[in-house]
Formats: sequence, C-alpha cells, structure tokens
Amino acid sequence: MKKFLYVLSIVFVCSLICYAVGKEKKQYQSPVIENILTRVSVRQYSDKKVEQEKIDIILKAAMAAPSGTNKQPWEILIINDKQKLKKISEVAPNAKYAENSQLAIIVCGDINVSEKLWMQDCCAVTENILLAAHALDLGAVWCMAYPSQERVSDIQKLFNLPENVVPLSIIPIGYPLEKEQPKQKYNVKKIHINGWK
Amino acid sequence: MKKFLYVLSIVFVCSLICYAVGKEKKQYQSPVIENILTRVSVRQYSDKKVEQEKIDIILKAAMAAPSGTNKQPWEILIINDKQKLKKISEVAPNAKYAENSQLAIIVCGDINVSEKLWMQDCCAVTENILLAAHALDLGAVWCMAYPSQERVSDIQKLFNLPENVVPLSIIPIGYPLEKEQPKQKYNVKKIHINGWK
Repeated sequence: MKKFLYVLSIVFVCSLICYAVGKEKKQYQSPVIENILTRVSVRQYSDKKVEQEKIDIILKAAMAAPSGTNKQPWEILIINDKQKLKKISEVAPNAKYAENSQLAIIVCGDINVSEKLWMQDCCAVTENILLAAHALDLGAVWCMAYPSQERVSDIQKLFNLPENVVPLSIIPIGYPLEKEQPKQKYNVKKIHINGWK
Repeated sequence: MKKFLYVLSIVFVCSLICYAVGKEKKQYQSPVIENILTRVSVRQYSDKKVEQEKIDIILKAAMAAPSGTNKQPWEILIINDKQKLKKISEVAPNAKYAENSQLAIIVCGDINVSEKLWMQDCCAVTENILLAAHALDLGAVWCMAYPSQERVSDIQKLFNLPENVVPLSIIPIGYPLEKEQPKQKYNVKKIHINGWK
C-alpha cells in the first residue's frame, strides 16, 4: 500500500510538471505569434482561385484595424478582373506581381475623413490583411502606392477614385507557388530601455 | 452481419460529415482571425506586472513586420521606469494612460535609414505589437506621436533621441482592468469591386 501511494505521488508530481511545461510551451507556440513570425512577402502565386469566403474573412480582419479617434477613413478596392490586374502592373511596376495574382486589394484613405491619421489607420488595415491572408494559407505582399505622387495619381485615374481617396497600398493575393522561409529581422541592438544610450 | 455493415456505413458517413463541418468551422474560428477581430484599445491596466518573457515575444513580433525594400528603419524604446512613464503622460496628454501602465513601447523610425517608408514600416510594427499583446492576454493602445511635431520633439527631448529618430507611436501596455467588447467596424459600403462606383 505504501509503495502504491509512493508511486502515485510520483505520477502526480510528474503530471503537474508536464502540465506546467506544456502550458509554458503553448504560450510560445501561440498560433497568433507563430503567424506573425512566419509571415513572408509572397510575390508568386498558383492558378488556384481564392475562395470568396476567405476574401470575406480578410475584409473583416482589415476593418478591425485600430483607428485614430475611430474615424475609420479607409476605403477598400477589390480588383479581381484580370485585365485590371494587368493594368495595375503597368502603372505600378513595384506591384507587377498583381498581374499573376488572383486578386489585389488596394487600401485607400479618405483624407477628408481623417486628414492627420488616414495613413496610420490604412497601414494597420494593410498589416491586418497580410496577417489574415497568411493565416488562411494565402500569400500576399505590401506594394507601396502612397507616398509616390505619380503612383497615387495613376491608380486614382485607373479606378476612377475621387481626389480625396488616396491609395496607400496595393496587395496582390493568391495561393503561394512556393513555401518561403521568413527573414530573421529580430535585432537586439534596436531595443533601447528607458532612453537612448 | 448485414445490419452491422449498415450501421457501420451510417457511422462512417456521419463521421465524414462531422469532420467536414468541423474543418469548415475551424477555418472561421482561426485563432489568428479571432485575435484580430477581438483586439480592443485598452487604456486601463491592473497592477499586475508584465512578464519579461511576454515582452520578449512582443518585441520579436514587432520586428517581424514587413519593411519596404527590407530597410528595417525601426528603433524601439521600452519605458518601464515609473517616473518616465509619468513624464510621457505629461508631455503627451493623448498617451496619459502610460502613467498607469506597466510599460510603454515607443516605436520610432530612423528617417536616415528609410526616408520614404519609415512611417509605413513603423505602423506595421505598431500593429504587430498590439496584436501580439492581445494574444498574450495583455491590453495596449496606439497613441500617436508623429505627425504632431510638438509631440515628436517633446518625446525626442525626453528620451534623448537623435533628430533622425522620429517617434511614431506610444503604446502603453498592461493587464486589462476590465474585459471590453470590440467595436463593430465592418462596413460593406467601404468595399468597392474593380473600381469606384
């Protein structure tokens, strides 16, 4: 009996340790953190269509971005017309990947709605789109429109945007052609505690 | 025997349906999407200290942000000195929540490293920090420094930053005092297919 209780105690303690270690490990392996750390810019896409359901989820994630004084100045263009995707590649060479993507999302800001913070809000929208796409096994890449005045103007003309609606980013999306490794960007030298030293 | 096979077939079909429904549901319930949709701006914090381990994870997530032509112009200040947190509240009234937070992260951009895109990169860093904090059960809020020239200059003086290092955002962080509901910001009117209509 004594031996049995002894063994039981050891099993109990071992279980507790396993639970604690597992919990700890889980914290590190949070799918959210993992998703942020493994996101890569994807510039080549397969021919596989992107499900409308996934596009809807991405749009919900996009508009869940934080917004300065909650003005929500964003306007979101979805381009899935092949001819128009080709046109994007022509006017914005840095977004040439749009031509072979399944769709492109152009995140715009209405400067009449939030003159001071439209850009910050639209950047948060863009980052949410990239992270949501990655979580849904899609690939995407942030191509700049603003602050290039030429690019902004060309995209405005191409999609008939009012002057106050400024395209910030062009995001081609599709299923990745290849699995890529994320860049290692963590750099302890960029961390400063309680001031610049 | 026949009856047995009949029952077995039904069980098999039911399992397949359950698997398919479960998989579908899982896609919607992706922890990454859930985290994006439930993130809120948290402005009130408990006295509970933030574990160094969590701060380290947040910093890794921060620097995993996309960066225009991979210039990584960010510099990250961690403020955990109570006196300095109080000082932030004084010079930046919109970041007064820093005073009662456990720490504040100030995301800065080195304009000498990426003159054109430092702001977009630093916004992505800021959004990653907010999402990572939320995933780790912490609360945070994006308080603007840039583009207020006065605020930028005050923060630069306070933390002895070089002139080329511009603070973009101040992010107080701590354990939330209360559980808050996210704002519903999804608006189908902000979606435009293949052009402005």
